[in-house]
Amino acid sequence: MSNISALNKAFESRVRLGIMSILLVNEWVDYKEIKASLDLTDGNLASHITGLEKFGYIEVRKRFIGKKTNTSYQITALGKQAFNKHINALEKLINNL
Amino acid sequence: MSNISALNKAFESRVRLGIMSILLVNEWVDYKEIKASLDLTDGNLASHITGLEKFGYIEVRKRFIGKKTNTSYQITALGKQAFNKHINALEKLINNL
Repeated sequence: MSNISALNKAFESRVRLGIMSILLVNEWVDYKEIKASLDLTDGNLASHITGLEKFGYIEVRKRFIGKKTNTSYQITALGKQAFNKHINALEKLINNL
Repeated sequence: MSNISALNKAFESRVRLGIMSILLVNEWVDYKEIKASLDLTDGNLASHITGLEKFGYIEVRKRFIGKKTNTSYQITALGKQAFNKHINALEKLINNL
């Protein structure tokens, strides 16, 4: 009937779906841009970003722009592969409805 | 960029996606059938079913078949509406990738 085992628990939450969707179609994206576009609190975004980093699905870049620190994120090859697999499984589930 | 607010937190877990997908396309479905088709433990299935019942998205029917009790579930009109909205939002998110 319904194959949910191909769905990846790491991408269950809406926030993580949102983060991965943004990073899948963009190079390096600023923390502030992700926060604004998903309309999140710092605490909420930071906890999900840490989770995705632990899986190796996204990577961080910290640098100075002028005197200010700048933090941005990018999807990894592993992240791209895992997220595409998750999206395909979601599509299969939806198409069976 | 990415609109996740239309996604429903009640359907965030794979198990709930699986339960709602099965109930969306079937009348009354036995507890045992849901459990087998999603390959779940009793504890895992029961907790998610309780959660979906609390939202009013599914309803339970308990009856005797011969001497044995039989428990089955059905999606409610509210559940159908909410789940279809969630699926549409997922499709929009996926199509923007």
